[in-house]
Order: sequence, then C-alpha cells, then structure tokens
Amino acid sequence: MLPPSVGDMDVTVPTAELAETAGNAVRVLSGRVVDPVLSGLLISAESDGFVLAGTDRERSFHARCPGVTRRGGRVLVPGRPFAETLRALAEPEVRLAVEGARLAVRTAGGRFALPLLDIDFHPGVDEPPQVVGTVAGSVLAAAVPPVAAAASSDETVPAFTGIRVRSEGERLVLVATDRYRLAVCSLPWEPRRGGLDVLVPAAVLAETARQVRGTSRVSLHHTAGDAERVALTWLESTVTSGVLASPFPDEAKFFSAEAECSVTVRADVLAASVRRVAPYAGPYSSITLEVGDGEVWVRGSDPSTGEAEERVEVGICGERVSRAYRATYLAEALNAYGEATIRFGMRGIRQGSIITAVDARPGGIELRYLVMPLVPR
Amino acid sequence: MLPPSVGDMDVTVPTAELAETAGNAVRVLSGRVVDPVLSGLLISAESDGFVLAGTDRERSFHARCPGVTRRGGRVLVPGRPFAETLRALAEPEVRLAVEGARLAVRTAGGRFALPLLDIDFHPGVDEPPQVVGTVAGSVLAAAVPPVAAAASSDETVPAFTGIRVRSEGERLVLVATDRYRLAVCSLPWEPRRGGLDVLVPAAVLAETARQVRGTSRVSLHHTAGDAERVALTWLESTVTSGVLASPFPDEAKFFSAEAECSVTVRADVLAASVRRVAPYAGPYSSITLEVGDGEVWVRGSDPSTGEAEERVEVGICGERVSRAYRATYLAEALNAYGEATIRFGMRGIRQGSIITAVDARPGGIELRYLVMPLVPR
Repeated sequence: MLPPSVGDMDVTVPTAELAETAGNAVRVLSGRVVDPVLSGLLISAESDGFVLAGTDRERSFHARCPGVTRRGGRVLVPGRPFAETLRALAEPEVRLAVEGARLAVRTAGGRFALPLLDIDFHPGVDEPPQVVGTVAGSVLAAAVPPVAAAASSDETVPAFTGIRVRSEGERLVLVATDRYRLAVCSLPWEPRRGGLDVLVPAAVLAETARQVRGTSRVSLHHTAGDAERVALTWLESTVTSGVLASPFPDEAKFFSAEAECSVTVRADVLAASVRRVAPYAGPYSSITLEVGDGEVWVRGSDPSTGEAEERVEVGICGERVSRAYRATYLAEALNAYGEATIRFGMRGIRQGSIITAVDARPGGIELRYLVMPLVPR
Repeated sequence: MLPPSVGDMDVTVPTAELAETAGNAVRVLSGRVVDPVLSGLLISAESDGFVLAGTDRERSFHARCPGVTRRGGRVLVPGRPFAETLRALAEPEVRLAVEGARLAVRTAGGRFALPLLDIDFHPGVDEPPQVVGTVAGSVLAAAVPPVAAAASSDETVPAFTGIRVRSEGERLVLVATDRYRLAVCSLPWEPRRGGLDVLVPAAVLAETARQVRGTSRVSLHHTAGDAERVALTWLESTVTSGVLASPFPDEAKFFSAEAECSVTVRADVLAASVRRVAPYAGPYSSITLEVGDGEVWVRGSDPSTGEAEERVEVGICGERVSRAYRATYLAEALNAYGEATIRFGMRGIRQGSIITAVDARPGGIELRYLVMPLVPR
C-alpha cells in the first residue's frame, strides 16, 4: 500500500525561498528523533498558499511560502533530504508534484523524487499560543547569541542548557549560565498582556534569533498550564518550543557586591591578547590578569609550554589586584562585546568578575557578563 | 642543567615572513614523531642570515629568512607552538632572544617564551642531493593537486600513498592511483642530468606544491643509492623527502583500449549535476551516466532515499552506453578539470573510463584521469 498523501499536489515555487525555509525548518527540529515520521516535513498546498511544517514533539516549525498551486494536497517527506535537494538547485523555480509514492522535485532537466512518509502517523503542528508581547527582530538577533554562548550543552543538568526569558515591564531579560559564567541581557520589548518568565532551550532560541535577523517585529507567545509552551512568530513563520521545567537561580544576587578594581579597556584589544597568550596557559588553561599602573598584564605559563605575557594599556579605578580565568571563558565573555569599550570589574576571589559596556549599545540592549575566576590552587 | 643552545642569539625578524616560513616547516614535517626533539625547529642566526630547519627523519625542511642579527646562535624550539605564536602576532617585527632556558619572542608589549629543546640530540638537516632538473613553480602548483587527490591515504599499501615522478625527456610525468582511479599528469620541465623515476609520498609533494605557487623556478634534486631521497628547492627554501620503495604499476597499459563511447561536456556542468544527484545514490554511492541522443542522464536511486535524475546536454561520439561510478570518485575526477571542456571516454565494463581535456591547458599541463566504473551487482 502506498503511504497516503492527501490530494495529488502540483505546485510551482521559487527555489531559493523554499530552500531557505526548508533549511530553517530542519535546523529548528532537533534531528535526534527515533520515529522517522518526526523527521518529516509536512508540505501543504492550497489555493490560498503553500505551507511547510514539522515537529519533533518538543519543537515545531510552521512557515508559509509563496507558490502557485495547480492542484492542492498535503504530503510528508524526509526533511533533511528535501532541504538539501532544494539548496543544491540553481534554477529559480521548481515544481513539486506527487507521483505515486514519491514527491517529485522537478526542474527543466531534472527530477528528484523523495519517498512519501505516512502522513496519518504525523501528530500535526499545533497553533502557537497567545501573544504576550513583541520585540524588534534585529534587537533579538543581537541579544540572544552572547547569552546562548554562556549556556551549557551538557544536558545532564537541563536548567543550564536554557535561557531564562523574563519580562520586567517594558524590558525583556535573557539570562543563561553554565555555573562558570553567567550572561544577562536586557532589551526593550512591547508587552501585550500578562508577564513572561520561562526557561527556553538555548539552542532553539539561538537558531530562531538567527532566522529573525532581517525582520522588523517578532511576536512572543506563551501559554502556561499542562503543556507549557513558548513560540516566536515573524512574517509567515512560527517556531514553537516546550519550556524547561527546571528551577533557575535568580541572577540579581550575583551582582550585589562592589568591584575592588575596575579596568576600562576595549574588549577586542584585551580579547586579542588573551588569544595570543592562551596557548601558553597550560593544562588548566589558566590566564592571569594582573592590574598594574595604567596597564593589565595578561599572563600564562606552564613548565612544559613556556610562558607568555602581554601588556595592555587600560584605565584603572580601585585597587591593584590579580585574578586568573579559564582562557576560553574569558575570551568568549570579551567576544560578546565586539569592539566596544568595557568595564571589567574584579571582585573577591570567590565572586565573579563583572563585564559591562561603558557606552550604551545600539537597540537599547544592555549586556552584563559575569565570569568566575579560578581559585588559586 | 639547561638544555644547551649554541651562542645566545638575538635577532630581529619580519613577523609575517617568519610566521609563514615556520608554518610551512610545520606542515611539511609530519607531526607524528615520538621523539620531541624531532618536533623541534632549528633556528640559526649568523651574521649572513637567519635559517629555519627541521626534520622528522623522513622529511626535512630548510629555509632562509630575512633578519638582522645582533648576536648569532643556534637553538631548537618546539615547532608548532613557535609557528602559532608568530601567526597570532600583529606587530610587523619581532625580536628573538635566548633568555636562560627559553627562546623569547618579544614584541613591543609582550614576551612569549618557548622552552629550548636539547639541540645536541637533533640529527641535523642534510644538504639536498644533486639537481636533476627544474620546473616552473606555477606549473608544479597546478599539476600536483589533482594527481595527489587520486592517491590513497591508507598507509597499509604504501605504493598507493605515493606519486610516481618520472622524467620522459622534456616532460615530467606524475602518476597516482588508489586502484579505483588513476591520474596521470604530464608537464614541461628542463632536465639537467640523468633521468628521474621515484615514488614520492603524495602528502609531502602536495604540501610543497602549495608552497611553491608564486615561485618562478623550482629545482628537483635526487640521489639514488642507500638513502634514496628527493628534494625540491625554490628561492631560499628546501623540502627533502625519503622515497617510497614500493613497486608501482605502469600506467600505459590502462590507457590502451579504445573508447566505446566518447562524451564531450563541460567538466563543471557535469560535476554540478553529479553533486545534486549524489544524495540519492544509495548506500553504495552509485551514480549512473546513461548516454542518450545529445544528452547524458545522471541517475541515482535507492529504495529508501528515492530517485534522482538530471539531463545534461553533451556531444556524443560512438555507441550509447551506460556506466555506474562511485559518486565521490566521479566528482573528484571532474573537479580536477575545473571549467574546462572534457572528453569522457567510456570503455568496457571492467576497464576504466578516461577523462581528458579537449583544449590544451595553460602551462603545457596534460592531465589524463581514469576512473573505474562499478561492476553491476
């Protein structure tokens, strides 16, 4: 028996746009599903439009694409091969047509026929929950990556793989930590109704932020209750994700203590120095920042690899202290600030050092980054 | 006791040039040495110049660099860290100075100190053997990569990891095969004395060809005898390698049979089609080229991944045949010809298909490529 399709679809679509949408869908869905039906993309062609959708039960993707429908229908095809086939094509338009147990992607001189999956077993893609507010696409795209980079990819402690998204009036606050560093980003948003305080998987939020780059407004959706979910919608696209149910620390307590020493420096200048010294940082990858008069010495040493030190000119306020950091954490924290001038506040040896930008960032984004020093052995 | 250095070297060198030379040295030497002394680079500063050298016993590297010697000396330092340190520096000049048991790489604001290795245990780098001929750098750089790509990286059969370099009067012939394909490149050279017929490790020849790109002339050196070696020298650089002692098949016999069908097509057009169809080629990665009237159908199919076919317009001479090839081998063979128009000659099912360029290639390079079809199961 042929896997059922509904109707025998025949549509013509612009290749590049469909390829991008299919690629976006595949990147949102985790690809670690056991059930092949969940690796499929639902393709629906109706007279009023063309829709691509998919779900891995935790996340789902739904987007409309332009297209001219000759005959309507709905099919389920393997997602990744469909996206890769489209991406490789140079023709401006392709025709999608159901032919027996295949969906054929047809070009002037070619035919790429994907097996149909059994659409009856697909759970379908839910409607997004209700809108709780909106945010500018460019602001979300800039705010999420440095926060997502501070999250952990170790899923044994799920809370640390998430980004806490919390509304505070006209501001939306994103927080992530892997215990060794913590990033907090506050950005402007327009709340619609109620508040928001959810823990969203960092990977899906990072991928969605990448996709909304060129968009003017992104809507945030949320429903509490049994199946707590969040969604982001923009233009004709929707990404939905389940939320993490883990408790998440309140970040405010980590920022209470005053800095003993505050260093003002361009983030990229200090980051470049850290990068050069890092190969000398030894097996524990330990880089020391030693504050002198108008300068910071960036140091690394190890009996077998040798020693390196570089002097970076900085502004100083407070005591002359010295702190060691893991090279990669320090470099990633600094990279989050690009070429901005930062204030690097060193506090007690068991308290995180706090990085903030000296000048306001474009889009009203405020990023605070906390990186834990290494306790001397 | 400190590892000995000879003299206490103090030189100033242009950073970018030294970084490039040190990087070249590290890439030529295999990095799989057990003895740490062989992972070292010998640095010699004399009043008349500055030399970087190294050997892993199979291969060796020797190059002069510009530099101003304040105090002469010779040291041995770990090669890869030295190259990486230099590559990361932005200053136009660095100073290298022996300080105790360290070689310090000094910039205006920084010091990177590498441990000295014991120079007394280093075997030293031999002089290159005698010159047997010269070749244009750009010609060698263009000729070697497609041949090297046909060699195997499986060292259990050493012969197939090599490129046979053989002189035939005014031509130099490079041959490599991994049994599934065979590449033969003939290029012009200027012989000096005697002939040349050696099997050189493909990896070292490919890396050297990359380094000689911008050079006008490259000299080939060879000595037979107990320690048979080849060397390439250009400008102030020398790369030496031991030769492989394995027997290598004579390629002429593979090219004797006539083609049953000869297809004329632009290599990149056919390659692009193969790339698009390849995801459908199934577990054996099998792509069929089926010759029709003025066209070739590029086909792949598999019960689970579906089917794909593309029509490519071609010129035909001879019978209408059909042959299957492994997708990667076919793509690599076509890629070797870039945008050139090729003649693709299909022969008997157990004979390789032969690819040649229709028009003469720049630099007098002639490339013939043989790719074995898959025998139908």
